[in-house]
Amino acid sequence: MSSSFGTLFRVTTFGESHGRAVGCVIDGCPPRLALSEADIQPQLDRRRPGQSGISTPRDEKDRVVILSGVESGLTLGTPVALSIANRDQRPGDYGEMASIPRPSHADFTYQAKYGVRASSGGGRSSARETIGRVAAGAVAEKWLRERFGLEIVAWVSGAGEAAAPEPDADRITRAVVDAHITRCPDPAAASAMEAAIHAAREAKDSIGGVVSCVCRGVPAGWGEPVFGKLEARLAQAMLSLPATKGFEIGSGFAGSRMRGSAHNDPFVGKGGRLGTATNRSGGIQGGISNGEPIVFRIAFKPPATIGQPQRTADFDGNPAVLEAKGRHDPCVVPRAVPIVEAMAALVLADAAMVQLARAAAAG
Amino acid sequence: MSSSFGTLFRVTTFGESHGRAVGCVIDGCPPRLALSEADIQPQLDRRRPGQSGISTPRDEKDRVVILSGVESGLTLGTPVALSIANRDQRPGDYGEMASIPRPSHADFTYQAKYGVRASSGGGRSSARETIGRVAAGAVAEKWLRERFGLEIVAWVSGAGEAAAPEPDADRITRAVVDAHITRCPDPAAASAMEAAIHAAREAKDSIGGVVSCVCRGVPAGWGEPVFGKLEARLAQAMLSLPATKGFEIGSGFAGSRMRGSAHNDPFVGKGGRLGTATNRSGGIQGGISNGEPIVFRIAFKPPATIGQPQRTADFDGNPAVLEAKGRHDPCVVPRAVPIVEAMAALVLADAAMVQLARAAAAG
Amino acid sequence: MSSSFGTLFRVTTFGESHGRAVGCVIDGCPPRLALSEADIQPQLDRRRPGQSGISTPRDEKDRVVILSGVESGLTLGTPVALSIANRDQRPGDYGEMASIPRPSHADFTYQAKYGVRASSGGGRSSARETIGRVAAGAVAEKWLRERFGLEIVAWVSGAGEAAAPEPDADRITRAVVDAHITRCPDPAAASAMEAAIHAAREAKDSIGGVVSCVCRGVPAGWGEPVFGKLEARLAQAMLSLPATKGFEIGSGFAGSRMRGSAHNDPFVGKGGRLGTATNRSGGIQGGISNGEPIVFRIAFKPPATIGQPQRTADFDGNPAVLEAKGRHDPCVVPRAVPIVEAMAALVLADAAMVQLARAAAAG
Amino acid sequence: MSSSFGTLFRVTTFGESHGRAVGCVIDGCPPRLALSEADIQPQLDRRRPGQSGISTPRDEKDRVVILSGVESGLTLGTPVALSIANRDQRPGDYGEMASIPRPSHADFTYQAKYGVRASSGGGRSSARETIGRVAAGAVAEKWLRERFGLEIVAWVSGAGEAAAPEPDADRITRAVVDAHITRCPDPAAASAMEAAIHAAREAKDSIGGVVSCVCRGVPAGWGEPVFGKLEARLAQAMLSLPATKGFEIGSGFAGSRMRGSAHNDPFVGKGGRLGTATNRSGGIQGGISNGEPIVFRIAFKPPATIGQPQRTADFDGNPAVLEAKGRHDPCVVPRAVPIVEAMAALVLADAAMVQLARAAAAG
Repeated sequence: MSSSFGTLFRVTTFGESHGRAVGCVIDGCPPRLALSEADIQPQLDRRRPGQSGISTPRDEKDRVVILSGVESGLTLGTPVALSIANRDQRPGDYGEMASIPRPSHADFTYQAKYGVRASSGGGRSSARETIGRVAAGAVAEKWLRERFGLEIVAWVSGAGEAAAPEPDADRITRAVVDAHITRCPDPAAASAMEAAIHAAREAKDSIGGVVSCVCRGVPAGWGEPVFGKLEARLAQAMLSLPATKGFEIGSGFAGSRMRGSAHNDPFVGKGGRLGTATNRSGGIQGGISNGEPIVFRIAFKPPATIGQPQRTADFDGNPAVLEAKGRHDPCVVPRAVPIVEAMAALVLADAAMVQLARAAAAG
Repeated sequence: MSSSFGTLFRVTTFGESHGRAVGCVIDGCPPRLALSEADIQPQLDRRRPGQSGISTPRDEKDRVVILSGVESGLTLGTPVALSIANRDQRPGDYGEMASIPRPSHADFTYQAKYGVRASSGGGRSSARETIGRVAAGAVAEKWLRERFGLEIVAWVSGAGEAAAPEPDADRITRAVVDAHITRCPDPAAASAMEAAIHAAREAKDSIGGVVSCVCRGVPAGWGEPVFGKLEARLAQAMLSLPATKGFEIGSGFAGSRMRGSAHNDPFVGKGGRLGTATNRSGGIQGGISNGEPIVFRIAFKPPATIGQPQRTADFDGNPAVLEAKGRHDPCVVPRAVPIVEAMAALVLADAAMVQLARAAAAG
Repeated sequence: MSSSFGTLFRVTTFGESHGRAVGCVIDGCPPRLALSEADIQPQLDRRRPGQSGISTPRDEKDRVVILSGVESGLTLGTPVALSIANRDQRPGDYGEMASIPRPSHADFTYQAKYGVRASSGGGRSSARETIGRVAAGAVAEKWLRERFGLEIVAWVSGAGEAAAPEPDADRITRAVVDAHITRCPDPAAASAMEAAIHAAREAKDSIGGVVSCVCRGVPAGWGEPVFGKLEARLAQAMLSLPATKGFEIGSGFAGSRMRGSAHNDPFVGKGGRLGTATNRSGGIQGGISNGEPIVFRIAFKPPATIGQPQRTADFDGNPAVLEAKGRHDPCVVPRAVPIVEAMAALVLADAAMVQLARAAAAG
Repeated sequence: MSSSFGTLFRVTTFGESHGRAVGCVIDGCPPRLALSEADIQPQLDRRRPGQSGISTPRDEKDRVVILSGVESGLTLGTPVALSIANRDQRPGDYGEMASIPRPSHADFTYQAKYGVRASSGGGRSSARETIGRVAAGAVAEKWLRERFGLEIVAWVSGAGEAAAPEPDADRITRAVVDAHITRCPDPAAASAMEAAIHAAREAKDSIGGVVSCVCRGVPAGWGEPVFGKLEARLAQAMLSLPATKGFEIGSGFAGSRMRGSAHNDPFVGKGGRLGTATNRSGGIQGGISNGEPIVFRIAFKPPATIGQPQRTADFDGNPAVLEAKGRHDPCVVPRAVPIVEAMAALVLADAAMVQLARAAAAG
């Protein structure tokens, strides 16, 4: 239940961190889209562990295989199933956690919910679950780019106490983002973040962070009132990612402290379309895109699995000390960047198709 | 499309601000629940305009009528349809807005999406749409209270630049919240907020705010991985409310600046169940409730409709000045309190029923 | 749960036979469709009881009221809520049935399912539930007619042992169908049916029947593999009607006795499009419309509520004799005609919108 | 779109006949169910081609692999992904069909819908698509058997003009059904069917048939009014199978010719529960199971792909003669038996879980 997302562009993901494979089925992918594994692999490579000295050394090649829905390099309109094998399984790393649930992890809640759990703890809460999302998102993004010229770029805007100034959302590119291993486009902040991540690793600790994202080229009219408002779907999508604690669109929490006269975005003519002079709305008004860039931010908590000893309790409530073994990221936000982009693409592809139906229906 | 929310406890809302009625259909309400209009009306009364000197003087009685699904004071398990008449319609107030879309309102986006819009502007983006949610939420909440002893309390924790210290989430009650017209439980902050709202009204301006909410008594195990994580559904629910710009659960954005060793919630035995010593998780781990109180916050922007003149553009992109007429709240957060509670109840009732099915399925 | 139907053109019905109102909410109705109560009422009038000497004398005016979603005679694209009051309630008629469930009715199963039931017995299984469907179907049909030139005509092809020869599906009209109170377009068969219905009424008994339906003007390409095949959705729609026992498309059960060489529909050029020389496929191949008329048949059992005494058992399993009182149709098929048309329209409107999205998506 | 089925026990299938794999994802499978490939393989073996002299010689081993959702032989409650490789691909067999759509097949409609199609013609309309259903159905059936003691048995009751008398639905077993390669439990009819199938094969022709099915042990209360009536879901499920043309439950079309006094099923006490003396209702009343065996029948048309030459038209509408090559069943009903059982299991597992939720909700 609930491993599916979307109405017309509908993705179902599957897979635990330590099973045979992870992947997804995309039901509703538009037909006649040129598609091969090479279109999907780059975002998986940006997501995968072991990319740099600041991420987990768990080594997974994460090669995607298209099982169905594509022939002669074109999508057929039928379900596109994507599978990625799990290769580097070390269930032994999780031995102690059989009796002591990791604090702030999903070991306890999965056990409470299902009465059983994967040996690795919170199976579907693993970061590996996001592989299916990234693969599906790459397909969605390719379609959005080719059909609408849409661009999605995410970046790291905070890591621990280091924060980056806002870049120009109209211009930032993935190349600029990837220029630093932290995926923070501001060089000074990037250096501070890198240092903070290394310090956390040294201390067998972890730090949280913030990912920002802009979607450029979204036409006015996407998003469905009431429960399908575009920001509501984005919020659901982002808060469905592991380790997320918050979501802001446009002015966000800071906007709540403003007056309307200062917050409102005045309309201006923009070469044939109606635009806004400012963008505190974050590209969405009344749940519907207004043609301006969609801009939002997501808060990620520090990873729960840390190497230093923690005083906690075992499943029976007895005091215990846990020292997690295994390979874990001290900070997830650099690798979260392509995941956020993927979820944005899934939200937008679905909203686009629903609006295409309506526009065509009205004749 | 997308006026429905939930899987097993499923609500569909209908109605524009200036049509004949607003309301909802609840499909999947448990049978044999004692229910009458008197169970629903109190939350509608807390939501309705004209309650106090700080809200819009638009006078609506907002009396709910049960059209179906209840007989002899008991739900039948069949759809419960609830209807609330619109009485105080003044379409004339919206004359000028026919040619000039209100900045940061939904007039422009509804027109772009549908090629038509209600005379009152963004019809379904109106605050009156939330009446159906509040009515449905009152039913959900009654069931949650009787079946699980669950309690939901929201309050105003910020209005403009005035912010309240965090109350004790374990004890705060609606009576305490309602003791002040701002619905802020901290007397000093409440006074500052009231002053700020009056000042905004004087200036024909508006201010934003923050609503906080706690859900007590949620057992461990509610919430569905992956896209149905409990915080993801809460985020969708809250960002589907008019004028919302952000959502935080537990430690929220502040948590993103912490280290894991300081952020993790250690487990402790709590009289027969496993609890946590702190609650930075906000009652949810891995998308699933852990038995601790669920705590979250929502940012509301300042209302877009303000009386003072605004430089903007008309639908054709020509410069224009708009002075909105009509009756509008200078600050929505006091009235948003029961709406937030209603959406929390809808999320939790649905999650509860899905988990009841699973628990019963596993035998 | 499950009072909703459709994905993009989505209808939710509500209401018991003896509550305050019945009706529906249409979420996803295309915007800018000219719509008033006068567009909906005619099909409700064809459905309502008391039309002729062969239906129940229960007298309901069944006047539809549009509660939302329409302004100045145009749909807004927002939910269209339709309500029809229940006026002629006589709960007293159902007294004896409080202890004795009617054989082959839903009294027993509703009690088993919900642990409670409406005083009228199987509340949502009542024929009055279909009012919401007919109202929604009239809206769907208007859109299909205006947007695609589509025509839907149903008729009675069997009543008890009387069966009518197949009419020319390309030409049959509602005017021809309505020329006889049985809604059978074959005069001789119609007379036999009328006699059979009168005989059943005289005997305080009831008879079953068959309704046939043709949908003309459906373009090739509607219907979604796999579980959304057009015939699968039609079958679900029709078997969701009260008292139905069977569904056939095209050659139906007779086709199961044929050889492929005799059953296959050869393709032929038809003025610019590819058509078929015969139509044993019933207008659908592989779950997708092929441009030929869609033709299907539905079997209705004899109504379960009959006036003559029946030996049965009470809820406790003790032998009992039941003589149903109240006003009941001896044969439902004449009034089922507009209901079948409505469900066909709902299936097709939804399939149309989904295919419009895909066609637009492929660019 | 629409490759998913079910609400709480939700299956998504993927795969074309000539791609890399076919399979499914089951989202919502109850946790702690003992499950291995050996539980699934037997029904796939009953479905697979090449079992006997009367089916297609296409040789596929159809070995299922569990990709996720199971650890240490128990389901985790997370998505169970099942994959079955396609091994025996011979796209060359479909050469001529590139320009000539097979009559009554899906080549034309897939092309019309998607503007592209698999080289094998109607990709997802292939019988191989049903593999994912059978695999998922085996899982559903195992849960239903262990949790409720439920039994599902289908058999061939008609092939071409040969029809079998109705067996005792209370006693028929799969062992009896499988005793003859036709899967008809009546020896005389089975011989006639076998002869008819051989004759059709000799003539490079095909024949249709009828599959009947009984579900024993379904408790009263499953099935959701209105659009989720149990017979409506069964009808959708069965009409979603390739080559189906009709569905009947209980008395079916024959019931439409009866009087109510003869058709009604009188209630009788049956050892502590209320049962019926006859079962013309087919185990369902008002859309809800009544505790009696659920009995239904499905009509399958003769396979469209036949070896003998057919006069038809090419895609451009020009007259053409088609002689299909490749390996095709002259009659699908023997192999359809496990597919029908699978779809019945999927419908019932989902209905069971929804009713478990309701029963638990009412407390």
